[in-house]
Amino acid sequence: MHRSQPPDLSIDTLGPCRIPSPIAHLLEAVRTGEHYVDERDRVLLDDTLEGISARGVAPQDLPGMEPCGPRRQIFFDPAKTRAAIVTCGGLCPGLNDVIAGLVRSLTYHYKVRRVVGIRNGYQGFVPEYGHDVVDLTPETVRDIAVEGGTVLGTSRGHQDPEKIVDCLERLHVNVLFVVGGDGSMRGAMEIARVCRERGLFIGVVGVPKTIDNDIPYIDQSFGFQTAFSHASDAIRAATVEAKSTANGIGMVKLMGRHSGFIACYAALARSDADVVLIPEVPFALDGEGGLLAHVRRRVAERGHAVVVVAEGAGQELLGDHGDHQDGDRDASGNARLHDIGPYLRRRIADHFSDAGIETSIRYIDPSYAIRSVPANPYDSVYCVRLSQAAVHAAMSGRTGMVVGRYRRRFVHIPMTVAVSRRNQVDPHGDLWMAVLESTGQPARFR
Amino acid sequence: MHRSQPPDLSIDTLGPCRIPSPIAHLLEAVRTGEHYVDERDRVLLDDTLEGISARGVAPQDLPGMEPCGPRRQIFFDPAKTRAAIVTCGGLCPGLNDVIAGLVRSLTYHYKVRRVVGIRNGYQGFVPEYGHDVVDLTPETVRDIAVEGGTVLGTSRGHQDPEKIVDCLERLHVNVLFVVGGDGSMRGAMEIARVCRERGLFIGVVGVPKTIDNDIPYIDQSFGFQTAFSHASDAIRAATVEAKSTANGIGMVKLMGRHSGFIACYAALARSDADVVLIPEVPFALDGEGGLLAHVRRRVAERGHAVVVVAEGAGQELLGDHGDHQDGDRDASGNARLHDIGPYLRRRIADHFSDAGIETSIRYIDPSYAIRSVPANPYDSVYCVRLSQAAVHAAMSGRTGMVVGRYRRRFVHIPMTVAVSRRNQVDPHGDLWMAVLESTGQPARFR
Amino acid sequence: MHRSQPPDLSIDTLGPCRIPSPIAHLLEAVRTGEHYVDERDRVLLDDTLEGISARGVAPQDLPGMEPCGPRRQIFFDPAKTRAAIVTCGGLCPGLNDVIAGLVRSLTYHYKVRRVVGIRNGYQGFVPEYGHDVVDLTPETVRDIAVEGGTVLGTSRGHQDPEKIVDCLERLHVNVLFVVGGDGSMRGAMEIARVCRERGLFIGVVGVPKTIDNDIPYIDQSFGFQTAFSHASDAIRAATVEAKSTANGIGMVKLMGRHSGFIACYAALARSDADVVLIPEVPFALDGEGGLLAHVRRRVAERGHAVVVVAEGAGQELLGDHGDHQDGDRDASGNARLHDIGPYLRRRIADHFSDAGIETSIRYIDPSYAIRSVPANPYDSVYCVRLSQAAVHAAMSGRTGMVVGRYRRRFVHIPMTVAVSRRNQVDPHGDLWMAVLESTGQPARFR
Amino acid sequence: MHRSQPPDLSIDTLGPCRIPSPIAHLLEAVRTGEHYVDERDRVLLDDTLEGISARGVAPQDLPGMEPCGPRRQIFFDPAKTRAAIVTCGGLCPGLNDVIAGLVRSLTYHYKVRRVVGIRNGYQGFVPEYGHDVVDLTPETVRDIAVEGGTVLGTSRGHQDPEKIVDCLERLHVNVLFVVGGDGSMRGAMEIARVCRERGLFIGVVGVPKTIDNDIPYIDQSFGFQTAFSHASDAIRAATVEAKSTANGIGMVKLMGRHSGFIACYAALARSDADVVLIPEVPFALDGEGGLLAHVRRRVAERGHAVVVVAEGAGQELLGDHGDHQDGDRDASGNARLHDIGPYLRRRIADHFSDAGIETSIRYIDPSYAIRSVPANPYDSVYCVRLSQAAVHAAMSGRTGMVVGRYRRRFVHIPMTVAVSRRNQVDPHGDLWMAVLESTGQPARFR
Repeated sequence: MHRSQPPDLSIDTLGPCRIPSPIAHLLEAVRTGEHYVDERDRVLLDDTLEGISARGVAPQDLPGMEPCGPRRQIFFDPAKTRAAIVTCGGLCPGLNDVIAGLVRSLTYHYKVRRVVGIRNGYQGFVPEYGHDVVDLTPETVRDIAVEGGTVLGTSRGHQDPEKIVDCLERLHVNVLFVVGGDGSMRGAMEIARVCRERGLFIGVVGVPKTIDNDIPYIDQSFGFQTAFSHASDAIRAATVEAKSTANGIGMVKLMGRHSGFIACYAALARSDADVVLIPEVPFALDGEGGLLAHVRRRVAERGHAVVVVAEGAGQELLGDHGDHQDGDRDASGNARLHDIGPYLRRRIADHFSDAGIETSIRYIDPSYAIRSVPANPYDSVYCVRLSQAAVHAAMSGRTGMVVGRYRRRFVHIPMTVAVSRRNQVDPHGDLWMAVLESTGQPARFR
Repeated sequence: MHRSQPPDLSIDTLGPCRIPSPIAHLLEAVRTGEHYVDERDRVLLDDTLEGISARGVAPQDLPGMEPCGPRRQIFFDPAKTRAAIVTCGGLCPGLNDVIAGLVRSLTYHYKVRRVVGIRNGYQGFVPEYGHDVVDLTPETVRDIAVEGGTVLGTSRGHQDPEKIVDCLERLHVNVLFVVGGDGSMRGAMEIARVCRERGLFIGVVGVPKTIDNDIPYIDQSFGFQTAFSHASDAIRAATVEAKSTANGIGMVKLMGRHSGFIACYAALARSDADVVLIPEVPFALDGEGGLLAHVRRRVAERGHAVVVVAEGAGQELLGDHGDHQDGDRDASGNARLHDIGPYLRRRIADHFSDAGIETSIRYIDPSYAIRSVPANPYDSVYCVRLSQAAVHAAMSGRTGMVVGRYRRRFVHIPMTVAVSRRNQVDPHGDLWMAVLESTGQPARFR
Repeated sequence: MHRSQPPDLSIDTLGPCRIPSPIAHLLEAVRTGEHYVDERDRVLLDDTLEGISARGVAPQDLPGMEPCGPRRQIFFDPAKTRAAIVTCGGLCPGLNDVIAGLVRSLTYHYKVRRVVGIRNGYQGFVPEYGHDVVDLTPETVRDIAVEGGTVLGTSRGHQDPEKIVDCLERLHVNVLFVVGGDGSMRGAMEIARVCRERGLFIGVVGVPKTIDNDIPYIDQSFGFQTAFSHASDAIRAATVEAKSTANGIGMVKLMGRHSGFIACYAALARSDADVVLIPEVPFALDGEGGLLAHVRRRVAERGHAVVVVAEGAGQELLGDHGDHQDGDRDASGNARLHDIGPYLRRRIADHFSDAGIETSIRYIDPSYAIRSVPANPYDSVYCVRLSQAAVHAAMSGRTGMVVGRYRRRFVHIPMTVAVSRRNQVDPHGDLWMAVLESTGQPARFR
Repeated sequence: MHRSQPPDLSIDTLGPCRIPSPIAHLLEAVRTGEHYVDERDRVLLDDTLEGISARGVAPQDLPGMEPCGPRRQIFFDPAKTRAAIVTCGGLCPGLNDVIAGLVRSLTYHYKVRRVVGIRNGYQGFVPEYGHDVVDLTPETVRDIAVEGGTVLGTSRGHQDPEKIVDCLERLHVNVLFVVGGDGSMRGAMEIARVCRERGLFIGVVGVPKTIDNDIPYIDQSFGFQTAFSHASDAIRAATVEAKSTANGIGMVKLMGRHSGFIACYAALARSDADVVLIPEVPFALDGEGGLLAHVRRRVAERGHAVVVVAEGAGQELLGDHGDHQDGDRDASGNARLHDIGPYLRRRIADHFSDAGIETSIRYIDPSYAIRSVPANPYDSVYCVRLSQAAVHAAMSGRTGMVVGRYRRRFVHIPMTVAVSRRNQVDPHGDLWMAVLESTGQPARFR
């Protein structure tokens, strides 16, 4: 069975994440005639016969995740609830859709009266930075999703969780929505921990953001479809350039530090790529089975070649050879990568030059142009539904968890699980097989 | 638990659909280093604890579907295999991607040497129509996906399955790929039956097509995302028109004869719609709880209103009042609908006129403009993967089944199951709840 | 010489349109280091040798128009100037760009402190309608051009110029910018007249709007490029539909009541159209030289045909046969047209039916979807430059004139001239020749 | 008077460019009922009163250019004519439209029976490169304009004109269409010269290509609108990135080696740019009046800044400081520029760093992604009309000239004139004024 994302967690880690509270009785949710999620229901982590049988336990003991959705009983009294929203890390299509969705759902569905936006990521909580908070209403967020980026601004890097909770207390915030990546969710876990230590009833709910689609147990992260759609345009451009000259080569470096999803999907969306290189599949450059010889053969056969490389691919090749980037980690704590793009470009150029073949290499790196585009309609819908799910989770008293879509179901995922590992392209899975079929490249360059 | 598509079939109907054959030994598939699907594996039909427990059977007895993918042993010898492709019914974004994907997968992966395209749907099999067949190669399909439509042409309506199988015999076709809707799959079942009756080893594999997303057990049909994305543009246009005049009303009629998916998704992609009307949720026009009063209130509050209506909505209102369309069924046997759009437009106009409110109604019906667009990158990827899955299924000897994606897994679905009912928006499910939250309309107009 | 727009006015009508004023000395414009337009310069109406020689006058006596641009001496003291903006008539891409451009140019360039927007066209001046005015600042117009339509709203129809001038007086408006069509410019002329009669120093400057590109002496009206670009998409859609069935016919009805520019340009942008029908070139339906026989021949040759028809084409055929529309004039006083589209569709269907040829006709009318789109980048630039020109004109004391681009020069055009006739496609000019070459249709169907 | 392109040539250089031939009588053109251009007509070079009066000559002695269009008498007998098409230099949107337009016009209008495409620019004429020629028919060029690039391929650099003419003789080519830039037109002039020297009746007609819009006497070069539209997207992206962080700066480097048209138009299409830097307007970096201080002030006022820089801007600053690129001229003979982008980025970063302001600079260089896109509908129309004009010119016996649109008229321009200088943004003209008004930047940074 070809999975792109084989589940491997024990059931214990998937239990509900609730605000620890002595409150015996939850509130009845506003009656709007809608239907409620049964608090005892779960979505199975593994839905293959193979997976289920292997465990040998009764069905009710199989690991599963809570479905998202409105609960009959809620934790917070909407009339007295204050919500805050913060967006962290790099841009990703859909941030404004999430912000707008959260505000609308809080306001229209639960009648929450005050929602504030924190400016410039976690910096906005820290007085030293001097950023204001902004009031968010359905009116102020009406048209924000037309533009990309985030109206709240963002920043990278860690901030002191004690200071952040100080700020939440000052603002009388009850529920905090953190829209951010891996590092931001670790920050959110610290915030939840400090709240717990101080005995504060503050819910911290995450909407996980990663343009690389590398969050485990999430079908596709928001903005991913928009991102790979635009990435496929870059492949188109590189192909047109490559075809326009004798022995032309087009190279496209795409996002994907640890996961090659954007490269795979963008390449599948066009039938143009001759090679796709991703972090999950190491490759050799030299020798008859290596990448360079393969590219040369393709140019000989077709008159041109197109190479798509994820930014995290081939790090193993770059020991001392890659274009160094200063420092080892960026402000968000992400490991700095060597830059495979220019290195590969140079190696290909040298290889053709050594072989006495005149070529012309066009190199396209569309990263920033992609991060800043508005969400496409699919991602807009997805962001709306994620934000509705996040609001329901928060109002029901959840904390320390994120919302996501797992096998088409919206589910609650503990933050500990969401940051436990990265979702990666399975080199034995059907996505990578589809790429191999589409490009005709060998399973491995070696 | 809010499902949009609750499974309700017994396990018996999901068994493998294979060409009945006395052949004892299958061929070893070409060794390309890739991984094979385990023939015994299944994807569970129901993956909720609730669903599984309710059955009270051992896991291995739970109903499940075969996963798609390459098999270690195949039925047809690629060197001797001839494949045919036919596209039937109305246009849908992605048809050319499917054709190109089938041709590439047959040629590159299995080295099948002859693939023919049948012109103009099932008509192309019937000598009386005089249509040629066309040879399809990776070269001839290289750029076809840039344009919408289908390079093979299409037609509606039933043709004699005996004549079709005559033609398959004449062409020495071993595997037939039918890309089409509900009616076309019924036709394909008849073709498979005739092949069986004649003792022919011909596989008939379907790639189900429906712009309305109404195929059961399929997450989303190909072209659906492209379609609703364009549909959301029509909502944008109607909103701009509505806002531009005092008391302006925008109406958009969208595709969806029996299922309101396009209307729901297109509306969620924009926050503009005030009302969404779908076939699954009947509505009343008159009275204080009716649609007309609601629209009037919205115009009073916001200065304008936007109504999105699926073509199949409100049929119950149209007894003798709708704009009749001649005949009761079209060539494909689909029931002709009364046209809700103009009827609703008239009723709204009359209502405002009776209330003495000057208004201006803009009515947009983007149907044909949507059906003919090329697939967006997501749908292109989906079509490639579906066509690869269809080729693997066909080469392994499957027949009478379609490929689809069920909870993110590519699976085999018996044609009997695929045409057994329609996928519809669950009025108690989370998609419709999301629409209600987004529009603020009541759960029912009554 | 093939002109699309042969000039034919006497020089007298092109003289400057200034506010009649006893003020002897104009103000020195703010010194910003820029260059000023020489008040005596003119752009020649006719720049062909043929045209110039024919007149037999000295060059300085040749008719010409004032170039747009900043003047060294201005009429209004910016610090004391109040400006108003009104948008009238149907939507057209670029309206918000013009509004934003006017506001920015008034505020940033001239430091005008108060700009008000009139709501819903000329209705907004009339107290009975109860519309507020809105303050316009660079901040409030920052992002409005991202969406189509007009943030000020619009309306059709005539309003009493006395009431309008009453309102201008109440608001202490010195310069009024009217963005609108033919009828609105006639209204603006009345406003200017009433101002003159009352001895008010109020400038009325127009930015002419017509999606049909039918304003004389203007290269292309704003929004036109955006409009025909989208219109060409409709032709693409109709072509895809037509090609997808045996003997398929695609019909696209495009905007163009009196001028076929959109139909011509949209058809030239694609090589798909087999026939283009415009108001300027009458056509016969029947007989061997008629349209119907031509379409039938094309279908026989190519298997399909695509017909593009401007809404005003073939009115001469429709005496009693066209689909009537109630009333003879709409609120703006435009003559109601018979609807050529459905009539033509019926005639083509009957013709094929009579000839015993099975066909399928797809009819697309994209009108409203086109009017409401945002301006494309070219039109955005054009709108910015037009609005800057309009502000310079207004501040220099012009009135009763519009700004436009004539042979790539921005010029002042008296309103009397701008409404004197319609710009039309010259049936002997190179645009129509290009269409004939592109479609291969005969010069006339007769 | 603010011109972007003041004409300055004597009338002598504008005379007709004809194949020198003893043939007394031209052929009558095929009669297709269309209208012909009067061979004696001219379009005046200068159409301002100022310009005309200054010359003090009779109108018929004013300098003017031949209008394009079909002639009553043609030079070549279509039945015996062979045409060749070659595309040279860098990619530009619209190349495939021009190729398709030439083929259609030759085939459909003049019934020319053989059109060949030369592969990979001038290299394709030279046997040593071993490139085939391709037959071009309306069928083979049907869909090529959907994709960007050129189906014929291209190359840079000079080739021996004697060898090229040898090849033309071998292929029996009568008319050669060269689609290329400055350098390619110089090559075309040499080809025409060799033809003349050999007494060959071969016409060489150019369709001038430059994405920078720097051809004199041409309103806008084909592909320019498409290019700046996409360039404005890059400005949008940079703006979104800049706004998303505290003190964010977005930088966009756009095409424009000697002319800043793309930078100006792209900036005008968005109201986001704070500074536009073009080759025509030198700028200082340091001091209170310099660029760096200006950017710092903008960031202080608005929280972010966006800088748009044409690649050829600020070369005067780069003596020894710019990022060197090896060699002084590329294969086409274009002077290699120092790379202003990274230099400016570093200077801005240092300036903020020295001032103790934390900032984040996003740098976007969309060049290749822009060159390879397909033409937008406007440019498609323009390419069709240019190619029709080129065919009419060639068939009438013109040589050594290019077609272009001058003040909205399609005209013949001698190649000597077309390469005589570059069209540049007039620092005193209304385009640059519009940019200054739009950005609010000072007329000069000094």
